Amino acid sequence: MADQLDRRGLLKLGLAAGAAAGLALPRPAAATPSTLPERAKGLGRPVLDPAYGRPSGFEKDVVRRTWTKGPLEQASSMTPLADLKGIITPNGLHFERHHSGIPDLNPDTHRLVLHGLVRQPVVFTLDDLLRFPSVSRIWVMECSGNTNSEWAKPTRDSVQGTHGLISCCEWTGVPLSALLDEVGLLPEAHWVIAEGADSSAHVRSVPLIKALDDAIVAYAQNGEALRPEQGYPIRLFLPGFEGNMSVKWLRRLKVTAEPQYAREETAKYTDLLPGGKARLFSFEMDVKSVITRPSAGHRLLERGPREIVGLAWSGRGRITAVDVSTDGGLSWQPARLQEPVLSKCLTRFTLPWTWQGAPAILQSRAVDETGEVQPTRAQLVDARGVNSYYHYNAVQSWKVATGGEVSNVHV
Amino acid sequence: MADQLDRRGLLKLGLAAGAAAGLALPRPAAATPSTLPERAKGLGRPVLDPAYGRPSGFEKDVVRRTWTKGPLEQASSMTPLADLKGIITPNGLHFERHHSGIPDLNPDTHRLVLHGLVRQPVVFTLDDLLRFPSVSRIWVMECSGNTNSEWAKPTRDSVQGTHGLISCCEWTGVPLSALLDEVGLLPEAHWVIAEGADSSAHVRSVPLIKALDDAIVAYAQNGEALRPEQGYPIRLFLPGFEGNMSVKWLRRLKVTAEPQYAREETAKYTDLLPGGKARLFSFEMDVKSVITRPSAGHRLLERGPREIVGLAWSGRGRITAVDVSTDGGLSWQPARLQEPVLSKCLTRFTLPWTWQGAPAILQSRAVDETGEVQPTRAQLVDARGVNSYYHYNAVQSWKVATGGEVSNVHV
Repeated sequence: MADQLDRRGLLKLGLAAGAAAGLALPRPAAATPSTLPERAKGLGRPVLDPAYGRPSGFEKDVVRRTWTKGPLEQASSMTPLADLKGIITPNGLHFERHHSGIPDLNPDTHRLVLHGLVRQPVVFTLDDLLRFPSVSRIWVMECSGNTNSEWAKPTRDSVQGTHGLISCCEWTGVPLSALLDEVGLLPEAHWVIAEGADSSAHVRSVPLIKALDDAIVAYAQNGEALRPEQGYPIRLFLPGFEGNMSVKWLRRLKVTAEPQYAREETAKYTDLLPGGKARLFSFEMDVKSVITRPSAGHRLLERGPREIVGLAWSGRGRITAVDVSTDGGLSWQPARLQEPVLSKCLTRFTLPWTWQGAPAILQSRAVDETGEVQPTRAQLVDARGVNSYYHYNAVQSWKVATGGEVSNVHV
Repeated sequence: MADQLDRRGLLKLGLAAGAAAGLALPRPAAATPSTLPERAKGLGRPVLDPAYGRPSGFEKDVVRRTWTKGPLEQASSMTPLADLKGIITPNGLHFERHHSGIPDLNPDTHRLVLHGLVRQPVVFTLDDLLRFPSVSRIWVMECSGNTNSEWAKPTRDSVQGTHGLISCCEWTGVPLSALLDEVGLLPEAHWVIAEGADSSAHVRSVPLIKALDDAIVAYAQNGEALRPEQGYPIRLFLPGFEGNMSVKWLRRLKVTAEPQYAREETAKYTDLLPGGKARLFSFEMDVKSVITRPSAGHRLLERGPREIVGLAWSGRGRITAVDVSTDGGLSWQPARLQEPVLSKCLTRFTLPWTWQGAPAILQSRAVDETGEVQPTRAQLVDARGVNSYYHYNAVQSWKVATGGEVSNVHV
C-alpha cells in the first residue's frame, strides 16, 4: 500500500519534455544486467496450473472487504479501488450486496417467467435466451448506498471503504425489449416487476420505458458466465440505475400497470429529505468521481513528480470533464480522460502532480453530458439534509500531511 | 455444449418485428410463478466467501485446455472462445504460452534495467513505474502460432483448439516512450532488445519506431495486477504484434543499433515460403475472424431463428466490416459489429440466422481499416505455400450437418 521507492542511488534526469522528468531513479547496480536472477534458473510452473487462473500470491491483500457488522448473508463487500487500474473490474473483485445470501442455482433447471399484462406468458430456459440477439456493453454498477458513510463524520480510512460499492464490467445478455416483443405487451402495461430467486425474493419495480430502452437480461460479465454473487445464471441489468434494481438470480418478470411498492423501494432505498418527505424511486445514479491514488491509507514517501489517478461516472450518460484540485477546491485543473469514454461506464482520469512535501487537499469534480456537476459536500447537504442514507455523490477530499500520510477529511 | 432447449410446450409467437420472432418457447407450467423454488428457501452463501471470487461450480468445464504433447512448461493453453461473450477475456481464461514455465517473481525485489544506447542507464522498481503517467487500453493479444493446426487437414474439433491462442484484456502500464525519454536515446539507437526473467531468458528485438509508438510496460490486466502466467509483475505489451514479442516477466530493455537475431526470431517465429526463403520479423498480426457460436463440437437441436456470433481482429487497426456466409462462400451478408469497435482489439460480430435443418457451411470474412481482407484458405496457401507454421489467418469453415452436428472442414 505504501508508495515507497527502493533507492540505490539518486539521479535527477530531467531529460524529457512532457514526460515524468525528474524522478529520482537508481543507476544499475554492480551486477551486470545480463546476469540471470537466481529465481529464473529452473523451470517454472507449467500451463494449466491451474486451468482457470488465479492472481499471484503476492497480491493476496487485493481482495473485497466488508464494513458490515451484521450477518454476512445480509451484507455488502467492497471493491479495492485503490489497487485497480483502468476501468474494468475483474470478476473476482466485483462488489457484493446480498439480502439473503447467494443461492446456488443450476442453469439447466433455472427458468425465467415473463407474464402479467402480456398477450402470451412465456417460460424461458437459459438456452432460449442464448438464441435471442445479444448485446454486450461496458457498464458501471453502483449500489445506491455507496459512500453513505460520508453523510456522517469521516471515519473510513480507505477509498475501498468509502467508494468500493462500485464496479465496472462488460455485461452481455438479451435486450429486455426483445423479450417483451416476444410476449407482446398489452396497452395498460407501464411497469415490470422483477423478482429474484434468492430467499429474500428481492423485488423491484422497473418503469416500462427503461425496460424498453437499454435494459438487458444478462448472462455474462467480462466474457464469462455471471459469477454466483452477481446473479448466476441470469440477472436484470439496468444501466445507470441504482444497483439493487438490477435484480440478481432473476426468476420472474411481471408486467403491470402500477409499481409494486415493495419493501426495498419504500421502507428501504428511499431518502428522507429535510422537509420530512422521502424521495421514492430515485433510479438514476448521479454524477460522481473520486481520486483512487493517492487516497486515504496511502503514504507518499518520495517527493517529486507522480500521477493523480481516479474514476468518474454518471448514471445519466458520458463523463465530459473532470477537474482536480490539490488545494481543497481553491483552484482546479482539468484532468485527462482516458479513452474510451463510454456512457454509464467508469471513466479513468489522470493528472500529473509534483508533490514537494507541503500539506495538500486532493479533490476531483466530475461533469456529465447532461451538464450535471458533482456537488461539494456543502451543496449536497444544503439540498438534501443529512437524513439520507443513499445517493451520496459529493466531492471527496483526501488530505496529504507533511509526512506524506493521506487521510479522509471533510472540508 | 449442446444447444438443446428444454421443451414443455410449443408456441410460435411471431409477434416481434425485427426481434427473434418465431422461437418455440414454452408456456408457464402448472406451478404458479409466485411459488418460490425449494432452493431459495434458506440463506445462501455470505459475502467474502471467497473474498476473491470464483466462477460457479456449474462452469467447471469452461477452462483453458492444451493440445501440446510435450512438456507443459514449454507449451500453450487455449482460451475457450465458444463459451465467451463480448470482447473481454477474463484473466483466469487468458491463453498461455511459456518457453520455460512461469517464474514466481517477487514484485518488491523485481527490477527493470533500461540500458544500452542511452544517455543514462536506469534501474526501475515497480513503484518507480507506478509514478509515471499511465495508459489503459483494451487490446487483443494473439500468438503467431494461433490456428497453425489449419495449415494441415482439419483435425481440431473446437474453436478453442483452432483459434484459442487469442485473448483480449484492458492492459495498463507506462508508455515505453516515457521510459526512453527518461533515459535519453543516443542517435544510433534503432532497436530495443527485450528480455524476460524466465529461465529461457526469452528475448525479442523490437523496432524503436514501435517502442516509441504505442508500446507499454504493462503492470495490470483487466484492472488488477498481471497474472503470473501473463508476466507478473511486468511485461512488455506491443499492440497488434505477434504475442511472443510482448516479453513477459520483463527484466531488461537494451537499446541497440541492430536486432539481436535471437533464437525466437530466427530459428523460430519465422515462416518458410514456397521459394525456400523464410519470412523474418513478421511483426503485425493479419486481419482475421472466426465464428464462435455455432462452431465445431456444437450440435443444433432446434430449428428456427438463432444468432451467429463471432470475433474479428487485426494487428493493424480497427475492423471495418465482417461478412458472414452460410453457404460456404457463395453468398455473403454483412454482420452487425458490436460497439465499441476499437483498434487492435477484438470486435464481436453477430448475424441473425434461421436454420431450417439443411446442411450449411458457416464462414466469416473480416476487413480492417487498412483495407486488408481476410483471405480464403486457397488464397493464403497460394501466397504462402504450406510450409509455414505461424500467421495462419484464412477464413474458417464450420459445417452444419442435417442432424445439427457442427464440424471443422476445409472447403
